[in-house]
Amino acid sequence: MTWPIVSIIVSLLAFAVAYWLYQWVSKQPTANKEIARIGALIREGADTFLVREYKLLAIFVAVVAVLIFILLPQPIWHEDGSVANNLYTALAYIAGSVFSALAGKIGMFVATLANMKSAEAATKGIKPSFMIGFRGGAVMGMAVVGSSLLGTTIVLLLTKDASMTLGFSFGASSLALFAKAGGGIFTKTADISADLVGKVELGIPEDDPRNPAVIADNVGDNVGDVAGMGADLFDSHVASLSAALVLGMALDGGKIGVNTSMVLCYAAIGLFASTIGVLLARIKEGGDPTGALNTSTYVTTGIFVVLTGLATWIFGFNALYWAATIIGLVVGVVIGIVSDYFTNDLRPPVQRVANASKSGPAFTIISGTSYGFLSVFPALFGIALSALLAFTITQNIVPDSNLDSLFGISMAAVGMLSIVAMIISNDAYGPIVDNARGLVEMGGLGEEALRITDELDSAGNTVKAVTKGFAISAAGLTVIALLGAFLSEANDLLASKGMEILTGFDIMDPTVFFGLIVGAGIPAVFSAMLMLGVDRNAERMVAEIHRQFDEIEGLKEGKPGVTPEYGRCIDIATVGALRELIPAGVMAIVSTLLVGFIGGIEAIGGFLTGNIVSGLLLALYMSNAGGLWDNAKKYVEAGNCGGKGSDAHKAAVVGDTVGDPYKDTAGPSINTQITVCSLVASISAGLFIAFSLF
Amino acid sequence: MTWPIVSIIVSLLAFAVAYWLYQWVSKQPTANKEIARIGALIREGADTFLVREYKLLAIFVAVVAVLIFILLPQPIWHEDGSVANNLYTALAYIAGSVFSALAGKIGMFVATLANMKSAEAATKGIKPSFMIGFRGGAVMGMAVVGSSLLGTTIVLLLTKDASMTLGFSFGASSLALFAKAGGGIFTKTADISADLVGKVELGIPEDDPRNPAVIADNVGDNVGDVAGMGADLFDSHVASLSAALVLGMALDGGKIGVNTSMVLCYAAIGLFASTIGVLLARIKEGGDPTGALNTSTYVTTGIFVVLTGLATWIFGFNALYWAATIIGLVVGVVIGIVSDYFTNDLRPPVQRVANASKSGPAFTIISGTSYGFLSVFPALFGIALSALLAFTITQNIVPDSNLDSLFGISMAAVGMLSIVAMIISNDAYGPIVDNARGLVEMGGLGEEALRITDELDSAGNTVKAVTKGFAISAAGLTVIALLGAFLSEANDLLASKGMEILTGFDIMDPTVFFGLIVGAGIPAVFSAMLMLGVDRNAERMVAEIHRQFDEIEGLKEGKPGVTPEYGRCIDIATVGALRELIPAGVMAIVSTLLVGFIGGIEAIGGFLTGNIVSGLLLALYMSNAGGLWDNAKKYVEAGNCGGKGSDAHKAAVVGDTVGDPYKDTAGPSINTQITVCSLVASISAGLFIAFSLF
Repeated sequence: MTWPIVSIIVSLLAFAVAYWLYQWVSKQPTANKEIARIGALIREGADTFLVREYKLLAIFVAVVAVLIFILLPQPIWHEDGSVANNLYTALAYIAGSVFSALAGKIGMFVATLANMKSAEAATKGIKPSFMIGFRGGAVMGMAVVGSSLLGTTIVLLLTKDASMTLGFSFGASSLALFAKAGGGIFTKTADISADLVGKVELGIPEDDPRNPAVIADNVGDNVGDVAGMGADLFDSHVASLSAALVLGMALDGGKIGVNTSMVLCYAAIGLFASTIGVLLARIKEGGDPTGALNTSTYVTTGIFVVLTGLATWIFGFNALYWAATIIGLVVGVVIGIVSDYFTNDLRPPVQRVANASKSGPAFTIISGTSYGFLSVFPALFGIALSALLAFTITQNIVPDSNLDSLFGISMAAVGMLSIVAMIISNDAYGPIVDNARGLVEMGGLGEEALRITDELDSAGNTVKAVTKGFAISAAGLTVIALLGAFLSEANDLLASKGMEILTGFDIMDPTVFFGLIVGAGIPAVFSAMLMLGVDRNAERMVAEIHRQFDEIEGLKEGKPGVTPEYGRCIDIATVGALRELIPAGVMAIVSTLLVGFIGGIEAIGGFLTGNIVSGLLLALYMSNAGGLWDNAKKYVEAGNCGGKGSDAHKAAVVGDTVGDPYKDTAGPSINTQITVCSLVASISAGLFIAFSLF
Repeated sequence: MTWPIVSIIVSLLAFAVAYWLYQWVSKQPTANKEIARIGALIREGADTFLVREYKLLAIFVAVVAVLIFILLPQPIWHEDGSVANNLYTALAYIAGSVFSALAGKIGMFVATLANMKSAEAATKGIKPSFMIGFRGGAVMGMAVVGSSLLGTTIVLLLTKDASMTLGFSFGASSLALFAKAGGGIFTKTADISADLVGKVELGIPEDDPRNPAVIADNVGDNVGDVAGMGADLFDSHVASLSAALVLGMALDGGKIGVNTSMVLCYAAIGLFASTIGVLLARIKEGGDPTGALNTSTYVTTGIFVVLTGLATWIFGFNALYWAATIIGLVVGVVIGIVSDYFTNDLRPPVQRVANASKSGPAFTIISGTSYGFLSVFPALFGIALSALLAFTITQNIVPDSNLDSLFGISMAAVGMLSIVAMIISNDAYGPIVDNARGLVEMGGLGEEALRITDELDSAGNTVKAVTKGFAISAAGLTVIALLGAFLSEANDLLASKGMEILTGFDIMDPTVFFGLIVGAGIPAVFSAMLMLGVDRNAERMVAEIHRQFDEIEGLKEGKPGVTPEYGRCIDIATVGALRELIPAGVMAIVSTLLVGFIGGIEAIGGFLTGNIVSGLLLALYMSNAGGLWDNAKKYVEAGNCGGKGSDAHKAAVVGDTVGDPYKDTAGPSINTQITVCSLVASISAGLFIAFSLF
């Protein structure tokens, strides 16, 4: 019982630090009226979106909760305590979505405050501006991982049943699916439309207050990159914990024993190490923000390794599981560095794509696609290798069982996600300083402040590519662990019905193979639906922007006192995003159920595997290619290959626009889609066993 | 012994028909001197490329043959008759590459003749022009499938060992890998460079004789779309036969029994039916060429179904295997129709992408990518379903064995590829009439002839998209069958060493999983390498075209008597293509060997599966997206969405250029890469069993 209590204490500590950081940020001065006005508009827009999104989600969650109560894990008309079990699962599901929503709300609340403060601080220098951006983001990091650990531990403590944490995890995934995909559609609709009419057609600068979509664009940064990303990583973190808890408790003979405790202990240490890392983050006046962000990450990593090592030694955990955890963490960091190679403008890929742009946009796309394809290999190899190593070193801990090695893999996933609070802090820093840059421009705070926020923004972009690669890989390893958890769940059910248990999923079994191939298609269809959603939505918004420039007199010329109707653009992005995300989300869930009812457990094993394989491939490709195009454009804008206004620049802008929905809508949403499918499969395993065609 | 003899007779019959068709084509008139001159240039360029390519390949094949002799299937220092066995495998390997090379050479010889005749005939009407184009292409179809069936049967007859046909198949694959990838790089280098400088920069029409790259472009059509495509389908056909023969002989207890005979019988009927279909193909004056091509395909399909049904009844083959074969064929046709939906300009996807182009090239790319992603699903589902159905209906033929159902799947692949001679005829028709169009333009044969060849060319494009979807799906099913053959081979070896045999490949086994994830990365890396090759090569050629326009006086203005140095562009394309394809090919082979030596048979099972999953996904995506962009551009050029010269047109051209290496270089080469990896794995199985790390 010690470790659940420790987990709860560490989570509460994280909340306390988050509150302290929030207080610190809110104490920073805001004097400029214009910034306060625009900041309020952004905040209001973000709130509006969140409220509408959460309302829609509430309906969705309610419907699913009822279905869970009736059907899962066993139909309610089933004997032996189904009612209580189903009720707990449904409640855990609701709790998962509520905890995630709360963390998102808190993070965004502080982010939309910090952007104003960071903008104003930029007039005083890079140090205060950076600190506000970073600490504002860190609130999100602390809130997300604090809620994740707290929620999971409470569910475990109350039910004493790790498989209930899968219900909690499913709640988190449902929310993440909608938050990430909906936020992703919102942000890219606004971004693309604002650029298309503003920069390309009219030639007015980015973040120009005349542009009717400019506030929507800034709102998008918050709902997509702050709230969406937070929900995504909340989801991955909970999923990695749940998978490890299910397998750990199976190893402990169904009790909270030494292995279950180890999972909670490591997770608590991860959050603790991130908290220290966040509090230690500093920058000197004139210092390098990228360096500051990376240093805190390395510090956190170091603390985690040392403390978990000590804990393992003192509390007698198995050192081999510890080694598996560290392997996961190290591979995660290495994958981050590889993503950086492919998306950093100091490295050949970005520079070659920028160079290719001189021959026209087609070459920007072809070369970017090629480097994007190349970039997936190191990450895939890293994931495969860490799974193989974690398995190999843990496979003889328990004789004649594969639970030990599956648990080893799940601990590698826990390791990879251990420092996620730090990762989220770095990641949320990006949109805050991006917004701050916008506010500096719109508030007219001067060239020096613009230069400073530009530098902060650029560091945010670099770090974002790295953390995205990290997040996708972590999700990949987590889903592998979830596959193990699914098998373990299914076997429990099979054994309880006196049926033969599965030793695994044989590729040569055609139901498995059927699932594998069909599963491989789902992430492609899912991303296509989201991207087409962005396309359709951007069309609507472009029409609205044109209308405003045509109808509002003096807007184009920037006549004082004439402001565009920002609210209409925010409305279009909001309504459109919510309309477009539903079919994609429903498709993912329904296809999982269909495959399960057609081919049963075996087909689902294949289906999830196909999902992982093609999902990782596409997610890594799209995120990296998108990041690469973004930075190739920036590289040209910095004066290379002809600089701003050249043909190469026009071509690079095309690449950047293509990359936008790749990297911010489809790519990172695929994680969530895979996790959702895995969790739907896990909690519906009983149904598939009872009713399936083949 | 009856059926091998029948196969040989039918193959020889196909050669006789091919010879008759060649005679018919060569008897058609050529009077126009200019066309004869340019036609000779194209022919010469194509020959030069083929000679250089084959020389390079000869070295490659010789090295691999020596390695095979020393190492495969068992190291030569191994006891029990390795020397003879290895020698036969090496000879079969050489035979496979030689047969494929010969078929390619024959096909291209006739194609480069038929293009001139078809161009001249266009002055007389659509009927003679179509017939020459089609019959010229049909020579390729007859030659390819005739050689494939003849070679495979001879190897089987001589060695009485079906696994030797895998060696033959590997030879065919090696050639295909180089022919498809090399030809693909050649053709797109020339195509993109010619368009970029000619159409985009200088605004001169396609196929304008002033363009130094125009002959290289036409040569490219022949080496990429005729020779390369032929080698690709030769490879798939042989591979499907080999896989079915290996499994059939295993079912027949190692003899040429009823199942082995059935494979040969069906293959012979497929070739026979295609021959009839080819001879029946007709078009009325003023008729629809697309309809004519499709009608012959349906006639062939019908004849195949009826004759194999009769043969099954008369010769007492198992009707369930017949059903599996027909399932494969029907699903293949359905997948072709789906590809058509996504690439036909009468359907919504192409029209929507054309419409999106009005907002700029980024939207062309985003929407095209989205529809490309969507298009993979029906094909993947079809492949998965046909494998599942074929398995299900054949699984109880032999009690307690999985050989029957694996054989069932391999028969579905045989069915899908049964009408491949017809498919190749349709496919080779495309580049012939495309070239004819070029010759009409360059020879100045007038507007009416241009209109006719335009119509023929457009039919070629439509049919090409369909046959490409068909070819990829067929390759997919074949590789699944090869996976079965690999397992069967590995188990023979394991049994002979007294080791435990494998029942399958368990996804939860981390070596399998390791292979799976790594294997999924290979097609991405492979396509990236090819596309970057095209990029680099096109850069060189664009520089050369610029040089000629700058240095050759009067060229730009079209002064009479001034001709560009066509040969230099052909040289650049040739040298570059051969230089760029080697690393990609070697990467595919070496990675297979590495994974095998690291993780053994289990890892290879996963590796091949990962290859299939991501290979199918990427190949279908790239082929369909490429075809879609091509037709969206044509749709705009036909006067829609603003028509030629509009912004939408410029954007659609960008899409088309991106699609070029997608659909003609990377996409269709992935098939071959997967087959090569499968065959390397199959014939190296013994080595992996003897030496592997995990």
